[in-house]
Amino acid sequence: MTNLLEGLIIIGGAEDKKGDKIILQEVCAHIEKESQLLVIVTVATQLPVEVGREYSDIFYNLGVKNIRVLDVRNREDALKPENVELMQKASLVFFTGGDQLRITSILGGTPLYSTMKRRHSEDCVFVGTSAGASVMSDIMIVTGLDDESAKKCTLKMAPGLGLITGVLIDMHFAQRGRVGRLLVGVAENPEVLGIGIDEDTSIIVNRENVLRVLGSGAVYIIDGSNISDTNVSEQYQDNILSMFDVKMHVLKTGDKYDLKTRRPFI
Amino acid sequence: MTNLLEGLIIIGGAEDKKGDKIILQEVCAHIEKESQLLVIVTVATQLPVEVGREYSDIFYNLGVKNIRVLDVRNREDALKPENVELMQKASLVFFTGGDQLRITSILGGTPLYSTMKRRHSEDCVFVGTSAGASVMSDIMIVTGLDDESAKKCTLKMAPGLGLITGVLIDMHFAQRGRVGRLLVGVAENPEVLGIGIDEDTSIIVNRENVLRVLGSGAVYIIDGSNISDTNVSEQYQDNILSMFDVKMHVLKTGDKYDLKTRRPFI
Repeated sequence: MTNLLEGLIIIGGAEDKKGDKIILQEVCAHIEKESQLLVIVTVATQLPVEVGREYSDIFYNLGVKNIRVLDVRNREDALKPENVELMQKASLVFFTGGDQLRITSILGGTPLYSTMKRRHSEDCVFVGTSAGASVMSDIMIVTGLDDESAKKCTLKMAPGLGLITGVLIDMHFAQRGRVGRLLVGVAENPEVLGIGIDEDTSIIVNRENVLRVLGSGAVYIIDGSNISDTNVSEQYQDNILSMFDVKMHVLKTGDKYDLKTRRPFI
Repeated sequence: MTNLLEGLIIIGGAEDKKGDKIILQEVCAHIEKESQLLVIVTVATQLPVEVGREYSDIFYNLGVKNIRVLDVRNREDALKPENVELMQKASLVFFTGGDQLRITSILGGTPLYSTMKRRHSEDCVFVGTSAGASVMSDIMIVTGLDDESAKKCTLKMAPGLGLITGVLIDMHFAQRGRVGRLLVGVAENPEVLGIGIDEDTSIIVNRENVLRVLGSGAVYIIDGSNISDTNVSEQYQDNILSMFDVKMHVLKTGDKYDLKTRRPFI
Protein backbone atom coordinates (compact mmCIF):
# COMPACT_ATOMS: atom_id res chain seq x y z
CA MET A 1 0.00 0.00 0.00
CA THR A 2 2.76 2.44 0.93
CA ASN A 3 3.72 4.80 -1.81
CA LEU A 4 7.01 6.64 -1.85
CA LEU A 5 5.22 9.62 -3.30
CA GLU A 6 2.96 9.98 -0.28
CA GLY A 7 3.97 13.11 1.56
CA LEU A 8 1.16 13.76 4.00
CA ILE A 9 -0.85 11.67 6.48
CA ILE A 10 -3.70 13.51 8.17
CA ILE A 11 -5.45 11.74 11.06
CA GLY A 12 -8.84 12.77 12.50
CA GLY A 13 -7.69 12.25 16.12
CA ALA A 14 -8.07 9.37 18.59
CA GLU A 15 -6.24 6.88 16.35
CA ASP A 16 -6.07 3.39 17.82
CA LYS A 17 -2.97 3.07 20.03
CA LYS A 18 -3.68 -0.26 21.75
CA GLY A 19 -5.23 -2.63 19.22
CA ASP A 20 -4.19 -3.19 15.61
CA LYS A 21 -2.84 0.39 15.38
CA ILE A 22 -3.57 0.34 11.66
CA ILE A 23 -2.95 4.04 11.15
CA LEU A 24 0.20 4.28 13.28
CA GLN A 25 1.52 1.18 11.53
CA GLU A 26 0.94 2.94 8.22
CA VAL A 27 2.85 5.95 9.56
CA CYS A 28 5.79 3.71 10.42
CA ALA A 29 5.66 2.05 7.00
CA HIS A 30 6.70 5.40 5.55
CA ILE A 31 10.07 4.98 7.28
CA GLU A 32 11.92 2.89 4.70
CA LYS A 33 15.33 2.39 6.28
CA GLU A 34 16.43 1.92 9.87
CA SER A 35 18.69 4.96 9.63
CA GLN A 36 15.86 7.33 8.77
CA LEU A 37 14.79 9.67 11.53
CA LEU A 38 11.22 10.00 12.86
CA VAL A 39 10.68 13.27 14.73
CA ILE A 40 7.70 13.71 17.08
CA VAL A 41 6.69 17.37 17.44
CA THR A 42 4.88 18.03 20.72
CA VAL A 43 4.46 21.79 20.35
CA ALA A 44 0.63 21.53 20.35
CA THR A 45 0.31 19.84 23.72
CA GLN A 46 0.71 21.09 27.27
CA LEU A 47 2.05 17.64 28.21
CA PRO A 48 5.03 17.39 25.85
CA VAL A 49 7.00 14.88 27.93
CA GLU A 50 4.13 12.43 28.45
CA VAL A 51 2.78 12.66 24.92
CA GLY A 52 6.26 12.49 23.40
CA ARG A 53 7.07 9.38 25.42
CA GLU A 54 3.76 7.67 24.55
CA TYR A 55 4.27 8.04 20.79
CA SER A 56 8.00 7.21 21.04
CA ASP A 57 7.15 3.92 22.71
CA ILE A 58 4.47 3.06 20.17
CA PHE A 59 6.64 3.84 17.14
CA TYR A 60 9.58 1.97 18.65
CA ASN A 61 7.42 -1.09 19.24
CA LEU A 62 6.24 -0.83 15.65
CA GLY A 63 9.84 -1.13 14.47
CA VAL A 64 11.15 2.41 14.09
CA LYS A 65 14.51 2.65 15.81
CA ASN A 66 15.61 6.21 15.13
CA ILE A 67 13.13 8.44 17.01
CA ARG A 68 13.56 11.91 18.51
CA VAL A 69 11.10 14.24 20.22
CA LEU A 70 11.26 17.86 19.13
CA ASP A 71 10.18 19.55 22.35
CA VAL A 72 9.45 23.15 21.38
CA ARG A 73 7.52 25.03 24.07
CA ASN A 74 7.92 28.65 22.99
CA ARG A 75 9.26 30.82 20.19
CA GLU A 76 12.71 30.86 21.73
CA ASP A 77 12.90 27.08 21.37
CA ALA A 78 11.93 27.47 17.71
CA LEU A 79 15.05 29.56 17.10
CA LYS A 80 17.52 27.07 18.60
CA PRO A 81 19.96 25.64 16.02
CA GLU A 82 19.75 22.12 17.48
CA ASN A 83 15.98 22.08 16.90
CA VAL A 84 16.36 23.38 13.35
CA GLU A 85 18.97 20.71 12.73
CA LEU A 86 16.64 17.98 14.00
CA MET A 87 13.95 19.11 11.54
CA GLN A 88 16.55 19.21 8.76
CA LYS A 89 17.49 15.58 9.42
CA ALA A 90 13.93 14.23 9.74
CA SER A 91 12.52 11.76 7.23
CA LEU A 92 9.10 11.76 8.91
CA VAL A 93 7.63 14.46 11.17
CA PHE A 94 4.69 13.61 13.42
CA PHE A 95 2.60 16.42 14.95
CA THR A 96 0.65 15.33 18.05
CA GLY A 97 -2.72 16.71 19.11
CA GLY A 98 -3.31 19.62 21.46
CA ASP A 99 -4.05 23.21 20.49
CA GLN A 100 -3.55 24.08 16.83
CA LEU A 101 -2.94 27.76 17.61
CA ARG A 102 0.07 26.75 19.71
CA ILE A 103 1.59 25.11 16.62
CA THR A 104 1.24 28.13 14.35
CA SER A 105 1.82 30.87 16.93
CA ILE A 106 5.03 29.28 18.18
CA LEU A 107 6.45 28.08 14.85
CA GLY A 108 5.26 30.82 12.46
CA GLY A 109 8.04 32.99 11.04
CA THR A 110 10.89 31.03 12.68
CA PRO A 111 13.84 29.23 11.06
CA LEU A 112 12.27 25.98 12.27
CA TYR A 113 9.17 26.77 10.21
CA SER A 114 11.07 27.53 7.03
CA THR A 115 13.15 24.38 7.47
CA MET A 116 9.95 22.39 7.89
CA LYS A 117 8.47 23.85 4.70
CA ARG A 118 11.67 23.08 2.78
CA ARG A 119 11.75 19.49 4.08
CA HIS A 120 8.12 19.11 2.98
CA SER A 121 8.98 20.25 -0.53
CA GLU A 122 11.77 17.64 -0.54
CA ASP A 123 11.16 14.05 0.55
CA CYS A 124 10.09 14.32 4.20
CA VAL A 125 6.68 12.86 5.14
CA PHE A 126 4.51 15.00 7.42
CA VAL A 127 1.88 13.46 9.70
CA GLY A 128 -0.57 15.15 12.05
CA THR A 129 -3.36 13.97 14.33
CA SER A 130 -6.21 16.04 15.77
CA ALA A 131 -4.82 19.59 16.20
CA GLY A 132 -1.82 18.39 14.19
CA ALA A 133 -4.29 17.50 11.40
CA SER A 134 -6.21 20.78 11.36
CA VAL A 135 -3.00 22.72 11.04
CA MET A 136 -1.89 21.02 7.80
CA SER A 137 -3.88 23.21 5.40
CA ASP A 138 -3.25 26.84 4.59
CA ILE A 139 -6.34 27.83 6.52
CA MET A 140 -7.45 25.96 9.61
CA ILE A 141 -10.48 25.83 11.88
CA VAL A 142 -9.69 27.11 15.36
CA THR A 143 -13.09 26.94 17.06
CA GLY A 144 -16.68 26.41 16.04
CA LEU A 145 -19.84 24.91 17.39
CA ASP A 146 -20.24 21.15 17.74
CA ASP A 147 -23.62 19.45 17.35
CA GLU A 148 -25.16 22.63 15.93
CA SER A 149 -26.38 23.76 12.56
CA ALA A 150 -24.30 26.17 10.60
CA LYS A 151 -24.64 29.73 11.80
CA LYS A 152 -22.98 32.58 10.01
CA CYS A 153 -19.63 33.64 11.40
CA THR A 154 -19.61 31.34 14.42
CA LEU A 155 -16.54 29.76 12.91
CA LYS A 156 -13.09 31.04 13.79
CA MET A 157 -10.35 30.29 11.30
CA ALA A 158 -6.64 31.14 11.18
CA PRO A 159 -3.71 30.62 8.81
CA GLY A 160 -2.36 27.06 9.03
CA LEU A 161 0.97 25.51 8.05
CA GLY A 162 0.04 25.26 4.37
CA LEU A 163 1.44 21.78 3.72
CA ILE A 164 -1.72 21.19 1.68
CA THR A 165 -3.64 23.98 -0.03
CA GLY A 166 -7.20 24.59 -1.16
CA VAL A 167 -8.77 22.47 1.56
CA LEU A 168 -10.23 23.02 5.01
CA ILE A 169 -9.78 20.07 7.34
CA ASP A 170 -11.93 19.20 10.33
CA MET A 171 -11.35 16.28 12.70
CA HIS A 172 -13.28 14.22 15.29
CA PHE A 173 -15.90 14.74 12.58
CA ALA A 174 -18.90 12.47 13.14
CA GLN A 175 -18.04 12.00 16.81
CA ARG A 176 -18.48 15.69 17.56
CA GLY A 177 -21.24 16.45 15.03
CA ARG A 178 -19.14 18.90 13.03
CA VAL A 179 -20.82 18.90 9.63
CA GLY A 180 -22.44 22.26 10.46
CA ARG A 181 -19.20 24.06 11.14
CA LEU A 182 -17.40 22.66 8.11
CA LEU A 183 -20.34 23.71 5.92
CA VAL A 184 -19.88 27.30 7.14
CA GLY A 185 -16.24 27.25 6.08
CA VAL A 186 -17.11 25.90 2.65
CA ALA A 187 -19.99 28.35 2.16
CA GLU A 188 -17.70 31.28 2.93
CA ASN A 189 -15.53 30.32 -0.02
CA PRO A 190 -16.65 27.31 -2.08
CA GLU A 191 -13.28 27.34 -3.83
CA VAL A 192 -12.09 25.59 -0.66
CA LEU A 193 -12.90 21.90 -0.37
CA GLY A 194 -14.11 20.72 3.05
CA ILE A 195 -12.60 17.49 4.38
CA GLY A 196 -14.10 16.07 7.59
CA ILE A 197 -12.14 13.18 9.10
CA ASP A 198 -13.58 10.83 11.74
CA GLU A 199 -11.62 9.62 14.73
CA ASP A 200 -9.29 6.65 14.06
CA THR A 201 -9.44 7.56 10.38
CA SER A 202 -6.88 9.20 8.12
CA ILE A 203 -6.25 10.52 4.67
CA ILE A 204 -2.95 9.82 3.00
CA VAL A 205 -2.16 12.37 0.33
CA ASN A 206 0.37 11.74 -2.41
CA ARG A 207 2.40 14.32 -4.24
CA GLU A 208 -0.06 14.27 -7.13
CA ASN A 209 -2.86 15.41 -4.81
CA VAL A 210 -4.72 12.11 -4.75
CA LEU A 211 -5.76 10.97 -1.32
CA ARG A 212 -6.71 7.56 0.01
CA VAL A 213 -8.63 6.78 3.18
CA LEU A 214 -7.34 4.47 5.92
CA GLY A 215 -9.04 3.69 9.22
CA SER A 216 -12.20 2.55 10.94
CA GLY A 217 -14.39 5.62 10.29
CA ALA A 218 -15.42 7.74 7.34
CA VAL A 219 -14.08 10.79 5.55
CA TYR A 220 -16.58 13.39 4.35
CA ILE A 221 -15.75 15.51 1.32
CA ILE A 222 -17.87 18.66 1.10
CA ASP A 223 -17.70 20.24 -2.34
CA GLY A 224 -19.43 23.61 -2.54
CA SER A 225 -18.45 24.41 -6.11
CA ASN A 226 -22.03 23.92 -7.34
CA ILE A 227 -23.69 25.91 -4.53
CA SER A 228 -26.54 27.71 -6.28
CA ASP A 229 -27.56 30.01 -3.43
CA THR A 230 -26.44 30.86 0.07
CA ASN A 231 -27.14 33.65 2.55
CA VAL A 232 -23.59 33.75 3.92
CA SER A 233 -22.48 37.31 4.66
CA GLU A 234 -21.17 39.40 7.52
CA GLN A 235 -24.65 40.57 8.37
CA TYR A 236 -26.89 38.90 10.91
CA GLN A 237 -24.16 36.71 12.33
CA ASP A 238 -26.51 34.63 14.45
CA ASN A 239 -28.72 33.64 11.54
CA ILE A 240 -28.80 30.10 10.32
CA LEU A 241 -26.76 29.65 7.17
CA SER A 242 -28.60 28.21 4.22
CA MET A 243 -27.00 26.75 1.14
CA PHE A 244 -28.44 24.94 -1.83
CA ASP A 245 -26.75 22.21 -3.90
CA VAL A 246 -23.82 21.13 -1.79
CA LYS A 247 -22.14 17.96 -3.05
CA MET A 248 -21.00 15.43 -0.46
CA HIS A 249 -19.03 12.21 -0.69
CA VAL A 250 -18.67 9.76 2.19
CA LEU A 251 -15.48 7.71 1.80
CA LYS A 252 -14.50 4.57 3.66
CA THR A 253 -11.13 2.92 4.08
CA GLY A 254 -9.59 2.19 0.68
CA ASP A 255 -11.63 4.80 -1.20
CA LYS A 256 -9.70 7.47 -3.08
CA TYR A 257 -10.31 11.07 -4.08
CA ASP A 258 -8.54 13.22 -6.64
CA LEU A 259 -8.20 16.74 -5.26
CA LYS A 260 -7.43 18.11 -8.74
CA THR A 261 -10.53 16.80 -10.52
CA ARG A 262 -12.67 16.71 -7.35
CA ARG A 263 -13.74 13.13 -8.08
CA PRO A 264 -13.93 10.11 -5.74
CA PHE A 265 -12.95 6.69 -7.00
CA ILE A 266 -12.36 3.17 -5.68
CA MET B 1 -48.02 33.14 6.02
CA THR B 2 -50.65 30.53 6.83
CA ASN B 3 -51.97 28.68 3.87
CA LEU B 4 -55.26 26.84 3.89
CA LEU B 5 -53.68 24.17 1.75
CA GLU B 6 -51.07 23.32 4.36
CA GLY B 7 -51.90 19.91 5.74
CA LEU B 8 -48.81 18.86 7.67
CA ILE B 9 -46.48 20.50 10.19
CA ILE B 10 -43.46 18.41 11.16
CA ILE B 11 -41.33 19.66 14.07
CA GLY B 12 -37.80 18.42 14.86
CA GLY B 13 -38.47 18.29 18.62
CA ALA B 14 -37.75 20.70 21.49
CA GLU B 15 -39.82 23.51 19.99
CA ASP B 16 -39.75 26.70 22.05
CA LYS B 17 -42.54 26.60 24.66
CA LYS B 18 -41.59 29.56 26.83
CA GLY B 19 -40.33 32.36 24.59
CA ASP B 20 -41.80 33.55 21.29
CA LYS B 21 -43.22 30.06 20.61
CA ILE B 22 -42.96 30.75 16.88
CA ILE B 23 -43.70 27.21 15.83
CA LEU B 24 -46.55 26.56 18.27
CA GLN B 25 -48.05 29.92 17.26
CA GLU B 26 -47.89 28.77 13.66
CA VAL B 27 -49.67 25.55 14.66
CA CYS B 28 -52.46 27.58 16.27
CA ALA B 29 -52.71 29.82 13.21
CA HIS B 30 -53.98 26.76 11.34
CA ILE B 31 -57.11 26.86 13.51
CA GLU B 32 -59.23 29.35 11.59
CA LYS B 33 -62.41 29.54 13.64
CA GLU B 34 -63.05 29.36 17.38
CA SER B 35 -65.38 26.39 16.89
CA GLN B 36 -62.70 24.23 15.28
CA LEU B 37 -61.32 21.44 17.45
CA LEU B 38 -57.62 20.91 18.23
CA VAL B 39 -56.90 17.36 19.41
CA ILE B 40 -53.65 16.54 21.25
CA VAL B 41 -52.64 12.89 20.82
CA THR B 42 -50.44 11.68 23.69
CA VAL B 43 -50.13 8.05 22.60
CA ALA B 44 -46.32 8.33 22.16
CA THR B 45 -45.56 9.41 25.71
CA GLN B 46 -45.54 7.55 29.01
CA LEU B 47 -46.72 10.75 30.71
CA PRO B 48 -49.95 11.40 28.82
CA VAL B 49 -51.60 13.48 31.54
CA GLU B 50 -48.66 15.83 32.14
CA VAL B 51 -47.77 16.24 28.46
CA GLY B 52 -51.41 16.66 27.46
CA ARG B 53 -51.91 19.35 30.07
CA GLU B 54 -48.73 21.20 29.11
CA TYR B 55 -49.69 21.49 25.44
CA SER B 56 -53.36 22.24 26.30
CA ASP B 57 -52.26 25.21 28.40
CA ILE B 58 -49.91 26.51 25.74
CA PHE B 59 -52.44 26.26 22.91
CA TYR B 60 -55.15 27.80 25.10
CA ASN B 61 -52.91 30.75 25.93
CA LEU B 62 -52.16 31.13 22.23
CA GLY B 63 -55.88 31.61 21.59
CA VAL B 64 -57.28 28.17 20.75
CA LYS B 65 -60.41 27.61 22.82
CA ASN B 66 -61.64 24.22 21.65
CA ILE B 67 -58.97 21.71 22.79
CA ARG B 68 -59.27 18.03 23.71
CA VAL B 69 -56.64 15.45 24.65
CA LEU B 70 -56.97 12.08 22.96
CA ASP B 71 -55.52 9.85 25.68
CA VAL B 72 -54.98 6.49 23.99
CA ARG B 73 -52.77 4.19 26.04
CA ASN B 74 -53.35 0.81 24.42
CA ARG B 75 -55.04 -0.86 21.47
CA GLU B 76 -58.28 -1.21 23.40
CA ASP B 77 -58.46 2.58 23.73
CA ALA B 78 -57.96 2.86 19.97
CA LEU B 79 -61.15 0.88 19.40
CA LYS B 80 -63.38 3.04 21.60
CA PRO B 81 -66.10 4.88 19.65
CA GLU B 82 -65.67 8.10 21.67
CA ASN B 83 -62.01 8.28 20.63
CA VAL B 84 -62.83 7.63 16.98
CA GLU B 85 -65.48 10.34 17.19
CA LEU B 86 -62.97 12.81 18.61
CA MET B 87 -60.63 12.16 15.68
CA GLN B 88 -63.53 12.54 13.27
CA LYS B 89 -64.35 15.98 14.67
CA ALA B 90 -60.76 17.28 14.78
CA SER B 91 -59.63 20.16 12.60
CA LEU B 92 -56.04 19.88 13.80
CA VAL B 93 -54.34 16.86 15.34
CA PHE B 94 -51.11 17.31 17.32
CA PHE B 95 -48.88 14.29 18.05
CA THR B 96 -46.55 14.83 21.02
CA GLY B 97 -43.09 13.33 21.40
CA GLY B 98 -42.26 10.05 23.09
CA ASP B 99 -41.70 6.70 21.42
CA GLN B 100 -42.67 6.49 17.75
CA LEU B 101 -43.23 2.72 17.94
CA ARG B 102 -45.93 3.31 20.55
CA ILE B 103 -47.81 5.45 18.02
CA THR B 104 -47.78 2.90 15.22
CA SER B 105 -48.06 -0.26 17.33
CA ILE B 106 -51.08 1.06 19.23
CA LEU B 107 -52.89 2.81 16.38
CA GLY B 108 -52.03 0.56 13.42
CA GLY B 109 -54.99 -1.34 11.99
CA THR B 110 -57.60 0.25 14.29
CA PRO B 111 -60.71 2.29 13.41
CA LEU B 112 -58.95 5.29 14.97
CA TYR B 113 -56.14 4.90 12.44
CA SER B 114 -58.44 4.70 9.41
CA THR B 115 -60.41 7.70 10.67
CA MET B 116 -57.16 9.61 11.03
CA LYS B 117 -56.12 8.75 7.48
CA ARG B 118 -59.50 9.81 6.15
CA ARG B 119 -59.38 13.12 8.05
CA HIS B 120 -55.91 13.71 6.59
CA SER B 121 -57.23 13.21 3.07
CA GLU B 122 -59.95 15.74 3.86
CA ASP B 123 -59.16 19.10 5.48
CA CYS B 124 -57.64 18.20 8.87
CA VAL B 125 -54.13 19.50 9.62
CA PHE B 126 -51.71 17.01 11.20
CA VAL B 127 -48.81 18.13 13.36
CA GLY B 128 -46.09 16.08 15.06
CA THR B 129 -43.03 16.87 17.13
CA SER B 130 -40.02 14.60 17.79
CA ALA B 131 -41.42 11.01 17.77
CA GLY B 132 -44.62 12.54 16.41
CA ALA B 133 -42.53 13.93 13.54
CA SER B 134 -40.66 10.72 12.67
CA VAL B 135 -43.91 8.84 12.42
CA MET B 136 -45.40 11.07 9.70
CA SER B 137 -43.76 9.38 6.73
CA ASP B 138 -44.52 5.93 5.36
CA ILE B 139 -41.24 4.64 6.67
CA MET B 140 -39.71 5.94 9.88
CA ILE B 141 -36.42 5.70 11.73
CA VAL B 142 -36.77 3.80 15.00
CA THR B 143 -33.19 3.71 16.25
CA GLY B 144 -29.75 4.45 14.91
CA LEU B 145 -26.42 5.72 16.09
CA ASP B 146 -25.93 9.36 17.04
CA ASP B 147 -22.60 11.15 16.53
CA GLU B 148 -21.28 8.28 14.40
CA SER B 149 -20.51 7.77 10.76
CA ALA B 150 -22.87 5.72 8.69
CA LYS B 151 -22.42 2.02 9.17
CA LYS B 152 -24.31 -0.50 7.12
CA CYS B 153 -27.50 -1.81 8.71
CA THR B 154 -27.11 -0.08 12.08
CA LEU B 155 -30.33 1.71 11.28
CA LYS B 156 -33.67 0.25 12.35
CA MET B 157 -36.69 1.39 10.39
CA ALA B 158 -40.39 0.55 10.60
CA PRO B 159 -43.59 1.46 8.76
CA GLY B 160 -44.87 4.91 9.78
CA LEU B 161 -48.26 6.59 9.50
CA GLY B 162 -47.78 7.50 5.84
CA LEU B 163 -49.22 11.02 6.00
CA ILE B 164 -46.34 11.99 3.71
CA THR B 165 -44.69 9.56 1.31
CA GLY B 166 -41.32 9.19 -0.37
CA VAL B 167 -39.39 10.79 2.48
CA LEU B 168 -37.50 9.67 5.56
CA ILE B 169 -37.63 12.16 8.42
CA ASP B 170 -35.09 12.51 11.21
CA MET B 171 -35.34 14.95 14.11
CA HIS B 172 -33.07 16.55 16.75
CA PHE B 173 -30.82 16.53 13.70
CA ALA B 174 -27.73 18.71 14.26
CA GLN B 175 -28.11 18.51 18.03
CA ARG B 176 -27.62 14.75 18.05
CA GLY B 177 -25.23 14.48 15.10
CA ARG B 178 -27.59 12.39 12.99
CA VAL B 179 -26.37 13.01 9.46
CA GLY B 180 -24.70 9.59 9.46
CA ARG B 181 -27.83 7.64 10.22
CA LEU B 182 -29.99 9.54 7.74
CA LEU B 183 -27.35 8.93 5.05
CA VAL B 184 -27.72 5.18 5.66
CA GLY B 185 -31.45 5.37 5.09
CA VAL B 186 -31.01 7.31 1.87
CA ALA B 187 -28.25 5.03 0.60
CA GLU B 188 -30.45 1.98 1.13
CA ASN B 189 -32.96 3.41 -1.31
CA PRO B 190 -32.09 6.75 -2.92
CA GLU B 191 -35.65 7.00 -4.22
CA VAL B 192 -36.42 8.14 -0.67
CA LEU B 193 -35.52 11.74 0.17
CA GLY B 194 -33.88 12.31 3.56
CA ILE B 195 -35.16 15.24 5.63
CA GLY B 196 -33.25 16.08 8.83
CA ILE B 197 -34.96 18.65 11.05
CA ASP B 198 -33.17 20.50 13.86
CA GLU B 199 -34.72 21.16 17.23
CA ASP B 200 -37.07 24.17 17.41
CA THR B 201 -37.41 23.93 13.64
CA SER B 202 -40.25 22.68 11.47
CA ILE B 203 -41.33 22.00 7.94
CA ILE B 204 -44.81 22.94 6.86
CA VAL B 205 -45.97 20.91 3.89
CA ASN B 206 -48.82 21.99 1.66
CA ARG B 207 -51.09 19.74 -0.34
CA GLU B 208 -49.00 20.33 -3.46
CA ASN B 209 -45.96 18.82 -1.75
CA VAL B 210 -44.07 22.06 -1.34
CA LEU B 211 -42.57 22.60 2.09
CA ARG B 212 -41.43 25.74 3.84
CA VAL B 213 -39.11 25.95 6.85
CA LEU B 214 -40.02 27.73 10.08
CA GLY B 215 -37.91 27.94 13.24
CA SER B 216 -34.54 28.78 14.71
CA GLY B 217 -32.49 25.90 13.26
CA ALA B 218 -31.86 24.34 9.87
CA VAL B 219 -33.46 21.64 7.77
CA TYR B 220 -31.17 19.32 5.81
CA ILE B 221 -32.40 17.75 2.60
CA ILE B 222 -30.36 14.71 1.55
CA ASP B 223 -30.99 13.77 -2.07
CA GLY B 224 -29.34 10.51 -3.08
CA SER B 225 -30.77 10.34 -6.59
CA ASN B 226 -27.37 11.08 -8.15
CA ILE B 227 -25.39 8.65 -5.97
CA SER B 228 -22.81 7.20 -8.35
CA ASP B 229 -21.45 4.47 -6.10
CA THR B 230 -22.14 2.98 -2.69
CA ASN B 231 -21.15 -0.18 -0.84
CA VAL B 232 -24.50 -0.58 0.92
CA SER B 233 -25.56 -4.21 1.17
CA GLU B 234 -26.53 -6.78 3.74
CA GLN B 235 -22.99 -8.06 3.91
CA TYR B 236 -20.43 -6.83 6.41
CA GLN B 237 -22.92 -4.92 8.52
CA ASP B 238 -20.29 -3.24 10.66
CA ASN B 239 -18.46 -1.74 7.71
CA ILE B 240 -18.48 1.96 7.14
CA LEU B 241 -20.90 2.93 4.41
CA SER B 242 -19.42 4.89 1.54
CA MET B 243 -21.40 6.85 -1.01
CA PHE B 244 -20.32 9.18 -3.76
CA ASP B 245 -22.23 12.21 -5.10
CA VAL B 246 -24.86 12.86 -2.47
CA LYS B 247 -26.64 16.19 -2.93
CA MET B 248 -27.42 18.21 0.19
CA HIS B 249 -29.36 21.39 0.79
CA VAL B 250 -29.32 23.28 4.08
CA LEU B 251 -32.50 25.33 4.48
CA LYS B 252 -33.19 28.10 6.98
CA THR B 253 -36.47 29.62 8.10
CA GLY B 254 -38.43 30.93 5.11
CA ASP B 255 -36.68 28.71 2.55
CA LYS B 256 -38.84 26.39 0.49
CA TYR B 257 -38.41 23.03 -1.21
CA ASP B 258 -40.52 21.36 -3.86
CA LEU B 259 -40.74 17.64 -3.10
CA LYS B 260 -41.95 16.89 -6.65
CA THR B 261 -39.10 18.53 -8.54
CA ARG B 262 -36.56 18.08 -5.71
CA ARG B 263 -35.55 21.73 -5.91
CA PRO B 264 -35.04 24.30 -3.12
CA PHE B 265 -36.12 27.89 -3.63
CA ILE B 266 -36.48 31.11 -1.64
